[in-house]
Amino acid sequence: MKLLEDRILRDGQVRPGNVLKVDCFLNHQLDVDLLDKIGEEFYRIFKDDGVNKILTIEASGIAIACMTARHFDVPVVFAKKAKSKNIDGDVYTSTVHSYTYGKDYNITLAQKFLGPNDRVLILDDFLANGKAMRGLLDVCQQAGASVAGIGICIEKGFQPGGGELRREGYKLASLAIVDEMGDNGSLKFRETEY
Amino acid sequence: MKLLEDRILRDGQVRPGNVLKVDCFLNHQLDVDLLDKIGEEFYRIFKDDGVNKILTIEASGIAIACMTARHFDVPVVFAKKAKSKNIDGDVYTSTVHSYTYGKDYNITLAQKFLGPNDRVLILDDFLANGKAMRGLLDVCQQAGASVAGIGICIEKGFQPGGGELRREGYKLASLAIVDEMGDNGSLKFRETEY
Repeated sequence: MKLLEDRILRDGQVRPGNVLKVDCFLNHQLDVDLLDKIGEEFYRIFKDDGVNKILTIEASGIAIACMTARHFDVPVVFAKKAKSKNIDGDVYTSTVHSYTYGKDYNITLAQKFLGPNDRVLILDDFLANGKAMRGLLDVCQQAGASVAGIGICIEKGFQPGGGELRREGYKLASLAIVDEMGDNGSLKFRETEY
Repeated sequence: MKLLEDRILRDGQVRPGNVLKVDCFLNHQLDVDLLDKIGEEFYRIFKDDGVNKILTIEASGIAIACMTARHFDVPVVFAKKAKSKNIDGDVYTSTVHSYTYGKDYNITLAQKFLGPNDRVLILDDFLANGKAMRGLLDVCQQAGASVAGIGICIEKGFQPGGGELRREGYKLASLAIVDEMGDNGSLKFRETEY
């Protein structure tokens, strides 16, 4: 998605440790117009895949999921990271190793919100090692839900998550794939598939 | 907002400890069409108040903020709760006591995203004791930002947060105000101001 690639080039910042900061438009301050266009793009790619629900993880995925759900006219559910007093009843849980936080954490989703009748589009802002995505896929498996596809805004193509998911046969659409991040701040994008 | 009140009556669940669960449409599973109408309503109420940015707190406020920001055509910024490796540089911080989690937590916002030129509409899903809102107001004060108004989806009118904010002169618009929650699950709404 050229609009997203151009925005990354304009406003993204490369940091040590292969970190790409896009906090001024994607995951701390949000450019809602850009997110809406991202949502349109995910709709274009996945509209014939029978999606009846969008699944994401708090917090960075929520905005993307909502703007996409508008186009699909389906609900959004998001996995929660923190223990909440207000999730009662049965939950699906999975464990995720976070690169950002340097530790494992649990994700939870109330069972009533995901089941065998669901065909989900899983969305998130980043894909790198793929640990968060594995947690969401685990939750889908526990629920008996099928996965129509996976939509990612920015994939770090030099990390293994994307390749593994593609080899396993998932329809994975990343709107921008960064194949190289130079110490001087340079970025090289891979041509995307969809 | 009658649409929201009706939805609360239909799908909301009263739990012990004055908890009102609206997780099937507002803050775990999201009804994006309802959220869009909520956004329209906040726009109707605040459109002449000079808003140039919407401020909220992760995670439950993000969807509401994004759907509202579409109508205003302004950015959203959200305060973060967890310590992140990826917030570098200067941040505003404040301490919030959480009823939900039973403890204090810090909120942070990168300083580059809020300053004296900003006139914010602060949005959140719930207002009860008002602790989270106080944290956001504190961040605004540190930033030198002015507060155009506060928009809340559901206010627990029997808790002090709303009254205090109104007495202090904030333009506080709550789309539904619950004045009573009965053990039998009954709810009584207060007539709203806007």
